[in-house]
Amino acid sequence: MGKLRMGMVGGGIGAFIGGVHRMASVLDGEFELLCGAFSSDPEKSRASGAALGIAAQRCYGTFEEMMEAEKRLPADERMQVVSIVTPNHVHFPPAKMALENGFHVICDKPVTFSLEEALILEKVVEKSGLVFALTHNYTGYPMVKQARQMIRHGEIGAVRKVIVEYPQGWLSTNLEASGQKQAAWRTDPTRSGVAGSMGDIGTHAENLAEYITGLKITEMCADISIFVTGRLLDDDGNVLLRFENGAKGILHASQICAGEENNLNIRVYGEKGGLEWKQMEPNSLIVKWLDKPMQIYRTGFGPLYPESTAHTRIPAGHPEGYLEAFANIYRNFAFAVRAHAEGRQPDPKFDFPTIQDGVRGMRFIEQVIEAGKSSKKWVVF
Amino acid sequence: MGKLRMGMVGGGIGAFIGGVHRMASVLDGEFELLCGAFSSDPEKSRASGAALGIAAQRCYGTFEEMMEAEKRLPADERMQVVSIVTPNHVHFPPAKMALENGFHVICDKPVTFSLEEALILEKVVEKSGLVFALTHNYTGYPMVKQARQMIRHGEIGAVRKVIVEYPQGWLSTNLEASGQKQAAWRTDPTRSGVAGSMGDIGTHAENLAEYITGLKITEMCADISIFVTGRLLDDDGNVLLRFENGAKGILHASQICAGEENNLNIRVYGEKGGLEWKQMEPNSLIVKWLDKPMQIYRTGFGPLYPESTAHTRIPAGHPEGYLEAFANIYRNFAFAVRAHAEGRQPDPKFDFPTIQDGVRGMRFIEQVIEAGKSSKKWVVF
Amino acid sequence: MGKLRMGMVGGGIGAFIGGVHRMASVLDGEFELLCGAFSSDPEKSRASGAALGIAAQRCYGTFEEMMEAEKRLPADERMQVVSIVTPNHVHFPPAKMALENGFHVICDKPVTFSLEEALILEKVVEKSGLVFALTHNYTGYPMVKQARQMIRHGEIGAVRKVIVEYPQGWLSTNLEASGQKQAAWRTDPTRSGVAGSMGDIGTHAENLAEYITGLKITEMCADISIFVTGRLLDDDGNVLLRFENGAKGILHASQICAGEENNLNIRVYGEKGGLEWKQMEPNSLIVKWLDKPMQIYRTGFGPLYPESTAHTRIPAGHPEGYLEAFANIYRNFAFAVRAHAEGRQPDPKFDFPTIQDGVRGMRFIEQVIEAGKSSKKWVVF
Amino acid sequence: MGKLRMGMVGGGIGAFIGGVHRMASVLDGEFELLCGAFSSDPEKSRASGAALGIAAQRCYGTFEEMMEAEKRLPADERMQVVSIVTPNHVHFPPAKMALENGFHVICDKPVTFSLEEALILEKVVEKSGLVFALTHNYTGYPMVKQARQMIRHGEIGAVRKVIVEYPQGWLSTNLEASGQKQAAWRTDPTRSGVAGSMGDIGTHAENLAEYITGLKITEMCADISIFVTGRLLDDDGNVLLRFENGAKGILHASQICAGEENNLNIRVYGEKGGLEWKQMEPNSLIVKWLDKPMQIYRTGFGPLYPESTAHTRIPAGHPEGYLEAFANIYRNFAFAVRAHAEGRQPDPKFDFPTIQDGVRGMRFIEQVIEAGKSSKKWVVF
Repeated sequence: MGKLRMGMVGGGIGAFIGGVHRMASVLDGEFELLCGAFSSDPEKSRASGAALGIAAQRCYGTFEEMMEAEKRLPADERMQVVSIVTPNHVHFPPAKMALENGFHVICDKPVTFSLEEALILEKVVEKSGLVFALTHNYTGYPMVKQARQMIRHGEIGAVRKVIVEYPQGWLSTNLEASGQKQAAWRTDPTRSGVAGSMGDIGTHAENLAEYITGLKITEMCADISIFVTGRLLDDDGNVLLRFENGAKGILHASQICAGEENNLNIRVYGEKGGLEWKQMEPNSLIVKWLDKPMQIYRTGFGPLYPESTAHTRIPAGHPEGYLEAFANIYRNFAFAVRAHAEGRQPDPKFDFPTIQDGVRGMRFIEQVIEAGKSSKKWVVF
Repeated sequence: MGKLRMGMVGGGIGAFIGGVHRMASVLDGEFELLCGAFSSDPEKSRASGAALGIAAQRCYGTFEEMMEAEKRLPADERMQVVSIVTPNHVHFPPAKMALENGFHVICDKPVTFSLEEALILEKVVEKSGLVFALTHNYTGYPMVKQARQMIRHGEIGAVRKVIVEYPQGWLSTNLEASGQKQAAWRTDPTRSGVAGSMGDIGTHAENLAEYITGLKITEMCADISIFVTGRLLDDDGNVLLRFENGAKGILHASQICAGEENNLNIRVYGEKGGLEWKQMEPNSLIVKWLDKPMQIYRTGFGPLYPESTAHTRIPAGHPEGYLEAFANIYRNFAFAVRAHAEGRQPDPKFDFPTIQDGVRGMRFIEQVIEAGKSSKKWVVF
Repeated sequence: MGKLRMGMVGGGIGAFIGGVHRMASVLDGEFELLCGAFSSDPEKSRASGAALGIAAQRCYGTFEEMMEAEKRLPADERMQVVSIVTPNHVHFPPAKMALENGFHVICDKPVTFSLEEALILEKVVEKSGLVFALTHNYTGYPMVKQARQMIRHGEIGAVRKVIVEYPQGWLSTNLEASGQKQAAWRTDPTRSGVAGSMGDIGTHAENLAEYITGLKITEMCADISIFVTGRLLDDDGNVLLRFENGAKGILHASQICAGEENNLNIRVYGEKGGLEWKQMEPNSLIVKWLDKPMQIYRTGFGPLYPESTAHTRIPAGHPEGYLEAFANIYRNFAFAVRAHAEGRQPDPKFDFPTIQDGVRGMRFIEQVIEAGKSSKKWVVF
Repeated sequence: MGKLRMGMVGGGIGAFIGGVHRMASVLDGEFELLCGAFSSDPEKSRASGAALGIAAQRCYGTFEEMMEAEKRLPADERMQVVSIVTPNHVHFPPAKMALENGFHVICDKPVTFSLEEALILEKVVEKSGLVFALTHNYTGYPMVKQARQMIRHGEIGAVRKVIVEYPQGWLSTNLEASGQKQAAWRTDPTRSGVAGSMGDIGTHAENLAEYITGLKITEMCADISIFVTGRLLDDDGNVLLRFENGAKGILHASQICAGEENNLNIRVYGEKGGLEWKQMEPNSLIVKWLDKPMQIYRTGFGPLYPESTAHTRIPAGHPEGYLEAFANIYRNFAFAVRAHAEGRQPDPKFDFPTIQDGVRGMRFIEQVIEAGKSSKKWVVF
């Protein structure tokens, strides 16, 4: 079986995340980008496709057109997977249509514009029997996998406290007023949904916390803010968390922490020890112990869980970063697509975020905004 | 004028913080420990005094006895200042008595057992006209002074967000059951007061946040927990903060963060930049900027505010630590006592925590515990 | 112009660096691997090619066969560039043959087995007029580019002192005796050449120091060691350096620094300030100043030289690593090949190591080994 | 037995290291400063003493006067120990005289002006039977003690490689020309001796390396430089080392590394692991292992050797620094003086640098300068 044939929705010239998806998809030689509806403007879609070396006849003006056309191609030529890299409000329509037309889907987060859409999509995925992956890319890092396994195997004991943070500073000023494209759609309720920072990065924090601890958040108490004058969506939020096992937590995400880049980080404390991981130094996992010296586990060095080592490509000390973690999601998605084609169960070691993570993320977004507005202390997740 | 003659209440053999006060008091040659009521057990008080080289006749069985006796000594022999280093429930009585008998007081925190006592003591201090210092020692670090001045001078713009943390791990297990003395009184409501971790270390975090930002906390929303079975006082707390100027914040203090030592730290974000300081690496102040490379300010290196340089003793790169910061409180207290003796105003550069900080700390303790119990979202500070 | 058609020499199943070259070459969509002589064993070459999705008829048994065959293909089908990823002793023959047959070459380091070969190859490159790139990949990092430009623009003043280190620990034991393939050829004089650690990693350190400072090393004094019993080539070396402008330096490379991963790092001190860069945290460049707080420049954040920003793909705070730096060499090589095809001068911003760097690296290897043996203090570089 | 009565030679107003010695001596309540010859100018000596609260009749114009006068005081009044804190050329005379008159001595480093003097002093110490301590203060840090014990107990296996560095930047410009007192004597051959940076800080590096490894340096190869125009003594040196057991090493000390504070640090690699300690973050000891995650040992946390825990005063996470390490030398000196008085052997756990360390330091200084001048590659230590 050769490379998987991929079509892309969005990601035309000037976009940001489309390029990331393309780099992530090719790194392990699993995918070949063969077609796309790169823009809602057909001219621009074709120009973008040409710049990417896509054959002119497979650059489509709309995703509907793409799916119709590709479906009619011979089985060994037509696209097999669709990559959706549009702003939030254009996730659901192409995802639903792709699944209903037999294409596997890998989609950027948050999965949809609203929880309602997410719940519908969940049903569509189930009915289709196809593979659906969501690019909560931070769970693709080898040391995130290691952290999850250490907790799962009880190394730090029952989890008591979780602190997850995602401070950025790039929206400290009214950047959207300048016309900056990334700022513009992220602060626009008609394209982003009910949340700004909470949807863009808070949901990454929520997903990371639940993934690493293996625990569900059950209640939230939130103080959600807009600091920049004129902005319509939150640019900061402080949230208290309660987890299903009685653990307590703090989630904080912000786009007005001046000077911060993408400082996603998490600390988890259990009865016997604590873990600390920082996205900006992703190849180190700090492990603290009650009564012995702290350790720093490093990507690819020394004994690690197979779930971790399966997600590194090069020898220890050669840093792997964001694109490699993102590529892990793509590669594992490819493995699942191939397993599907061969009627096999995929190896659980090669996991990736699913539609269920997507539904949870949308529920987080809606409930955290609700909690921010509520005068009640606790809102159910 | 020679060294200031100091008496001590508490700090006998086996105590912890008494030794710290003694080291801090002698470092700059400002104080001489001449007498003490080192223990509520007269035998033990004398033995402790002897080990410290205190003349037998000036080792007292009770603080009342000490104050009575010292008062009768000639003016140039009697003690001038009292250092109070007992558990919380024995702060108020000796402090009040000392002030009412003409002795300046330096007292460990929290200032009293209850807010009620603190408010009385505030009046006693005012009436006495004497100097009262509270050893919220973390404000004595040179880079804390620098951070405060940078904010005061508008370098990072209006403050928007404050995150202050004080995680420890030493009470992760039921240490008090083992008879460990420090654990025993800190987890005992009859000696500690209404709070455990919130009083012991949460109040340090509160004091640090208000000191550095120059802003008052106005509202709190708290989730206060007891994780260790059988414990009577909180060992963990997560708190959302609102400040008088509209800034938002998070305060988190814990004694069950397994593997943490004394990881007090604070981050403050303003409109133009952010500051970050960590007690465990106290000689660095990280300064982040919206649009230019972050800086690391270092104790005693390069241009710093005079308020900062006035609190360092040795050339840059020779680390100063906890005892030096503590000694800064003692030294500045000495300067104020000398100024008092000479009828001068003390130099404001040499500041130290006062009874007002103490009252605020007690209000924090009572209100944060109240907030933890409340079903209301926000409780007024 | 579509993707550049690439053939590979070496990099069959079980190899390490071949996979790195493949990932680096595809990241930016500039290359397509179409053929290869992946192993000196024709069976294995074919099996390796098949696993990579290479058409069977373009998997060759030898590089000679590949070049002969590809040359005969139509111009728009035949390979355009050759990537050489074999052990050191098999760099020169395919590189020379490729250039003499009109193929551009990108080659792993050190460029050849001996200085003699390197000098010949230099002439071959010149005569061919083709593009030749050497994968001293560490110079591809954005913050290495920034460091070079800061020095070039005089920001830290005239360089006085350079300290460059490359400690690894993986050869602390007699790993080659276990049959580990990477260890085996690197410790074998018939495949590695006259040097072990000095050739494998010392030469990276030398290249990095000269690249960042823009200065040539003129003299060396060396203490070269073999620590592991039975090993035939050096596994450690300590070298004093003198530079053309009077600067002094230290170069140290080792494969017996137990516990070290790939800790390449460099510090450069000038009259006004100093720079520090570490390969294992490659997105930070520490800049120290005589009289003001140190700064940390970060990949893609704040004002940086265009030579730096031209080598980053994603927003600041999303770590880029080894593969991205390696990919920068490949991408810049592609730009040069395309410029060559179009008869243009390539943009100097997109630089990469050349045959001249390769000659210098081989001179370093031969002279540092000579210096190690010499009883004279200084040996000319 | 009460506090030890101390006299001081040097350390008058405007001096630097005298204040450090005074703070270090009082921290643990072991010493009382009762007399001094604080300056070679009797007026200034008296003024300095007065500022320190020393009785006028015990402020002497010369050290000779002090020793003569103190000797005549009653045994329970006269000074017991002499602390020598003068520039290098005024170490030997007072040290010799003190020992010959029955006073224990604690002396700043380097021990004398020349090796010749040091060898004489060694004999004087032996003959006197008194206690002599040298303030190579960096060996007083708890994690330095831990490192020494870990190596001594074979935890990292036989030592193979040692890298010790002491970069400073404060003499990057011609500071001595400005009249700055500390710069002036350190760059003056008539007061410093044959070496500048090598004597001032290189000798600290040498002492630290031999102390931690327990190994003697046997040979050196040096490149010694003067970078600042007009300076008479070295301000930079790069040295290759060979140790008695076959280990290799690098020692580098500099006062022209612009932007560096007091960045003394050491790395030691053995067959099984490596240690790393940095004076500017002295409470961490990084321990790397061949095949398992690195650890960070922390002052006072978890299981440590008794030799380490005996040198810490406060709970883990409350940073101890330069003054505490310096105070450890003073306290251990006090223990030895008390043991001497009681005819006991002192507890070896409370060690401190001795006259033998001083002799070794002077030999290092003379030989490293010789090695720098020599055209021979290796000079015997």
